[in-house]
Amino acid sequence: MIFSMKPDTIIELNHGAGGTLMDKFLESILSIYNLKSIENGIGVDELDDGASIPLKDQTLIVSSDSHTVDPIFFPGGDLGILAAAGTFNDVLMMGAKPIAITCALLIEEGILYSTVEKILSSFAKICDEHNVAVIAGDTKILPKGQVDCMYISTTGIGIRISPNVIGDNQVKVGDKIILTGPTGKHGASLIARREGINLQTELQSDVAALAPMLLPIIETDSIHAMKDPTRGGLGSALNEFASKSNVGLLLDEELIPVHPEVNGVCELLGLDIYSISSEGRAIIAVDSEKADEVLKIIQAHPLGKEAQIIGEAIDKYHGKVVLRTSIGGHRLLRKTLGEPIPRVC
Amino acid sequence: MIFSMKPDTIIELNHGAGGTLMDKFLESILSIYNLKSIENGIGVDELDDGASIPLKDQTLIVSSDSHTVDPIFFPGGDLGILAAAGTFNDVLMMGAKPIAITCALLIEEGILYSTVEKILSSFAKICDEHNVAVIAGDTKILPKGQVDCMYISTTGIGIRISPNVIGDNQVKVGDKIILTGPTGKHGASLIARREGINLQTELQSDVAALAPMLLPIIETDSIHAMKDPTRGGLGSALNEFASKSNVGLLLDEELIPVHPEVNGVCELLGLDIYSISSEGRAIIAVDSEKADEVLKIIQAHPLGKEAQIIGEAIDKYHGKVVLRTSIGGHRLLRKTLGEPIPRVC
Repeated sequence: MIFSMKPDTIIELNHGAGGTLMDKFLESILSIYNLKSIENGIGVDELDDGASIPLKDQTLIVSSDSHTVDPIFFPGGDLGILAAAGTFNDVLMMGAKPIAITCALLIEEGILYSTVEKILSSFAKICDEHNVAVIAGDTKILPKGQVDCMYISTTGIGIRISPNVIGDNQVKVGDKIILTGPTGKHGASLIARREGINLQTELQSDVAALAPMLLPIIETDSIHAMKDPTRGGLGSALNEFASKSNVGLLLDEELIPVHPEVNGVCELLGLDIYSISSEGRAIIAVDSEKADEVLKIIQAHPLGKEAQIIGEAIDKYHGKVVLRTSIGGHRLLRKTLGEPIPRVC
Repeated sequence: MIFSMKPDTIIELNHGAGGTLMDKFLESILSIYNLKSIENGIGVDELDDGASIPLKDQTLIVSSDSHTVDPIFFPGGDLGILAAAGTFNDVLMMGAKPIAITCALLIEEGILYSTVEKILSSFAKICDEHNVAVIAGDTKILPKGQVDCMYISTTGIGIRISPNVIGDNQVKVGDKIILTGPTGKHGASLIARREGINLQTELQSDVAALAPMLLPIIETDSIHAMKDPTRGGLGSALNEFASKSNVGLLLDEELIPVHPEVNGVCELLGLDIYSISSEGRAIIAVDSEKADEVLKIIQAHPLGKEAQIIGEAIDKYHGKVVLRTSIGGHRLLRKTLGEPIPRVC
């Protein structure tokens, strides 16, 4: 049965927070569209990181995002870096090398040109580093109070280089699950800043484009699924794997890398660390025989030094994520309502 | 010499109004990007309606837009129709048949689901009518006052079906210029509504997807350039043809179809009719020998009943648009600052 929201439902921030309420909202929206994919392609209804357009000799991957992070300059990055890196990561997660990006700007009347210039310089730098062309754009200036400073909407286009389809629904029983680095630094750094928490060292966003680290391994056929745990955090991303692939994920909580200050922020504010976003991490489901080899390649890259195998896909607990806790028990890692603050991405 | 805006320039609404100030702003932004096209493709620096990605056997056309029209329901259409039709038209103007669209939503916290549903139902209806799949999307909910109700960012993807490259820079001396219908109805209807002008009949937007009318003619090689005169109006679009193709355009003002109520609104408010946007019209540069035949095909379609040949491209006044006025004089049709009100598209 297709779920559809009641017409008089008031849209709340949690409808966009990457958790359970957002799932319902998206299900409702998707029921409005009729044509949701190109023939034999991955479409919007798979709710993966992007869509595919199968052509004669190759497959294009397309991913769209709006970037509305607040503030636009944050510790460790800015809106421009986030927009480019986030888009490239989504294309990459579908097994593709990004080749082109479009950039549509919404700008608030009254800001300085230097602000636009700084953000777009960051954007261009990431594009240059990845040899990705900015092929099209749009620029709208809106009256004060109708946009907050600056938003960027992007569409990334890539060419699939993985020999197999890489997708959330491709996790196989026995696969090892790799997390490429400590979880939640992006979200936690924004929350700490907004809540005015003073940390001993400055907690920085993990925002980064992952292509240099991950392109070499997606060219092999050892990767079954990849996902960047952005909005909604690690918990949402892992649950997507489990439910779409209909496998259980059994993970060791002790093996999940966490930055101590991220832990601190979460404890202080009573937040679930698994609902906090990263913007430069991936979870990867790897053929168990290749897992050690893949892990070594990832750990050899600066972005993957702290990567770990955090668990595996099993033929039990289908559709669910189970954590083995540090005291030896088991608990379900459920999707939560989502990210606790708006505009993290 | 590349123009670059001073860092302390304050961004104004006119920097996005489709006129001369916007040209300077875009020139400045484009100087920030390095890679602006795929090899042998049309890139962002051509400032055409879209970009091209040449593949082995075919050429993809990609066009991105953010749609921020205010109000989201307006006489003759709504945000959903505008977003889908506007995107398909841009793809079409590059000689391509749209096949896929992405849809990124920015929604203000507190609006009703029924509003989202109505807008997306309109969007889906246009997609269905054109057999275009909604392949990817993104949904962000923003706190109150950080977006005005709802904006939609789209990227349209099409496959070029024209045997030749159709582009603003392809107008040839001798070409006839066709305008497919009365100019400025979209912008004038929004202005009339916002200014509270009571008209005898309700002036409606001309918003429409032009593919059914124009696909048959772009399959021939008689079309050199096409453009939809949206933001900045007919004056901006014609000047793009003239400057990019380095031809003069000599047009008969009396032949330009104008709806009497659009004329009335412009006279009442002292507005230049040629700076007011249409959202369901095209200007087309056609091989002179084929012009009558093409005009007949267009006039046979309900959207093109009032189409006219309004003039021709000449080997004089290079880069300029010249109007032969009703009293027999000549005047330059310059690009103005742009659309006189924000958020028309």
